[in-house]
Amino acid sequence: MKLCDLSTPAALIDSLRMQRNIGRMQQRMDALGVAFRPHVKTAKCLPIARAQVAAGACGITVSTLKEAEQFFAAGFTDILYAVGMAPHRLPQAGALLDRGCNLKIIADSAEAAAAIVDFAHPGNAGFEVWIEIDSDGHRSGVRPEGDELMAIGKLLHAGGATLGGVMTHAGSSYGLNQPAALEALAEQERSLCVLAAQRLRAAGLPCPNVSVGSTPTALMASHLEGVTEVRAGVYVFFDLVMANVGVCHLDDLALSVLTTVIGHQSDKGWAIVDAGWMAMSRDRGTQSQAHDYGYGQVCDAGGQVLEGYLMREANQEHGIVSAAGAPDADIVRRFPVGTQLRVLPNHACATGAQFPQYHAVKGDEVGPPWSRFYGW
Amino acid sequence: MKLCDLSTPAALIDSLRMQRNIGRMQQRMDALGVAFRPHVKTAKCLPIARAQVAAGACGITVSTLKEAEQFFAAGFTDILYAVGMAPHRLPQAGALLDRGCNLKIIADSAEAAAAIVDFAHPGNAGFEVWIEIDSDGHRSGVRPEGDELMAIGKLLHAGGATLGGVMTHAGSSYGLNQPAALEALAEQERSLCVLAAQRLRAAGLPCPNVSVGSTPTALMASHLEGVTEVRAGVYVFFDLVMANVGVCHLDDLALSVLTTVIGHQSDKGWAIVDAGWMAMSRDRGTQSQAHDYGYGQVCDAGGQVLEGYLMREANQEHGIVSAAGAPDADIVRRFPVGTQLRVLPNHACATGAQFPQYHAVKGDEVGPPWSRFYGW
Repeated sequence: MKLCDLSTPAALIDSLRMQRNIGRMQQRMDALGVAFRPHVKTAKCLPIARAQVAAGACGITVSTLKEAEQFFAAGFTDILYAVGMAPHRLPQAGALLDRGCNLKIIADSAEAAAAIVDFAHPGNAGFEVWIEIDSDGHRSGVRPEGDELMAIGKLLHAGGATLGGVMTHAGSSYGLNQPAALEALAEQERSLCVLAAQRLRAAGLPCPNVSVGSTPTALMASHLEGVTEVRAGVYVFFDLVMANVGVCHLDDLALSVLTTVIGHQSDKGWAIVDAGWMAMSRDRGTQSQAHDYGYGQVCDAGGQVLEGYLMREANQEHGIVSAAGAPDADIVRRFPVGTQLRVLPNHACATGAQFPQYHAVKGDEVGPPWSRFYGW
Repeated sequence: MKLCDLSTPAALIDSLRMQRNIGRMQQRMDALGVAFRPHVKTAKCLPIARAQVAAGACGITVSTLKEAEQFFAAGFTDILYAVGMAPHRLPQAGALLDRGCNLKIIADSAEAAAAIVDFAHPGNAGFEVWIEIDSDGHRSGVRPEGDELMAIGKLLHAGGATLGGVMTHAGSSYGLNQPAALEALAEQERSLCVLAAQRLRAAGLPCPNVSVGSTPTALMASHLEGVTEVRAGVYVFFDLVMANVGVCHLDDLALSVLTTVIGHQSDKGWAIVDAGWMAMSRDRGTQSQAHDYGYGQVCDAGGQVLEGYLMREANQEHGIVSAAGAPDADIVRRFPVGTQLRVLPNHACATGAQFPQYHAVKGDEVGPPWSRFYGW
């Protein structure tokens, strides 16, 4: 199948770029002497996770138990569920353990740890639990220097859970764009997570795993002493937000939305396309960054960036493409009705989620669709 | 099933509110003497569209041909596809005609009209085409007073297509919040669409249908002389954007996301919940309005608004709930881990699209899931 045979909007993956992104990250982790556990929430797609494992990943990270179930059913066994364990979901997680999944769950409060310990799970040694550390004030986790960390560790260990390690995510890295600041945050993420592990071990508690990561810190860390594994997700596709952060170039972006021109407002210099926010998502992550790409950077059907042409506005199934500056008086001739364009997204995780499937492309050749998971 | 048995995040529909919204809009249209054609892109859900037709809707409006196919397969026959017809989609639309669907398509350029006329469709009288009018500079459509309108009308009529009417959508109504301005825009939408119809008829061209609408203009029009039908979508659920526009109250909002508290940052006054932007969508439509609701207004599990509590930030599967002003020192006791909350969304069309299914609720009682369409 060729690109021109695809119904639009369609989510395209440039296979060569994706493989290059996967290979580079794995090589970097190998060089830094740590294992790599990709976060599959970005793509939620089996062939992509298989490519990550084939490149050397030690296991996967998931953001929902549905992802854990789907990937486990497909043969993935080493799975970290990286969202704080809600007590009402313990039976669902326990069922995965019973079926042989090597599932690790996380806790960041004595309350959650107590619920995990209290959860009666006959015939099983109990959950493997990693304690979530707050290394940058971004969201969840306990402070590495505080009492709560030790209380949770003791509670889990005494209660029969396997204390598997500590983990953190320096999500504030998305808000940076200077190499020195990114490197400093990576060092902060590393050192605080290692500190937490050292404190647990000093108290006689087991803490074999020390897991850190976000795409920017994974790519900017100068060393990872004391860390055993790194997690990252969006690196597999990259996106315009990551280009603004400064950890990729536009020609690394592997996910794009194929769309078709369906009309014009020639006096305004607008081309109307059949990809709106339902296809691009409502994510406008670049709005608060140095370069605001609107709803996306426009490329020709072959993927070549068309400098200055952005999707400026989006309704549900309509996008408005226009040039920077004065209205492009040639818009109708430049992009006649029926023209296919590709649009690079702000945030690959959000845009991917709008599609039931991806189409992997090499040049003009389209492979069979790769389905992705949806819902909870 | 009860609310507490639901896995979260889940999309809830308050059935009584939805029925009230449907009933009020239909009664208003009946009183104004026009037909009503709901836009089913908001919910993409059969039981909801059936409730709209049961209340008196004359047919449906769709935003994709996939919606047309799905609803036609379920017995809906009178369907307006309200996105400019792309030439490459004509075979797909033609196949619906062949199977007996009373599908109307739209065109807003001579180029698109020519493609429709040129599309050889053996054994069929040709497409019924409505011409899209630009009544507010919002997006697509031709100006009602211009030459292009007449050229398209003549081209379609001479080419054997059925010239079914004119339609417009004053989408700029979403940016208003004063009753007088909304009423004026509704009158502009009406009068310009009627003008287009009058010009076509004066030239001897048929123009039986005059179709206008958006939720705000449908609710604020003082009269609809010359209009034959109105279209609106989001009124079925309403949302925080519509509350800011001023066409509904918070207790009209029928769609909410049920979520569970999974942790806290007590010093910051944060409760972490298991609905992030994957559930709420990235739509922050209220950001540019008078009242910014963040990612959503927080309610208790029963749907009672908790004044001042918003979802302030969202990551993919995490939401941060906090109070306005100083950090709520009582957040842990107020919302312990395991607490269920409901969150009212910025934009119902975007939030609904994140879920494979809805759960209709009456009080604490949850009905069987209603599935919704996804993708293209």
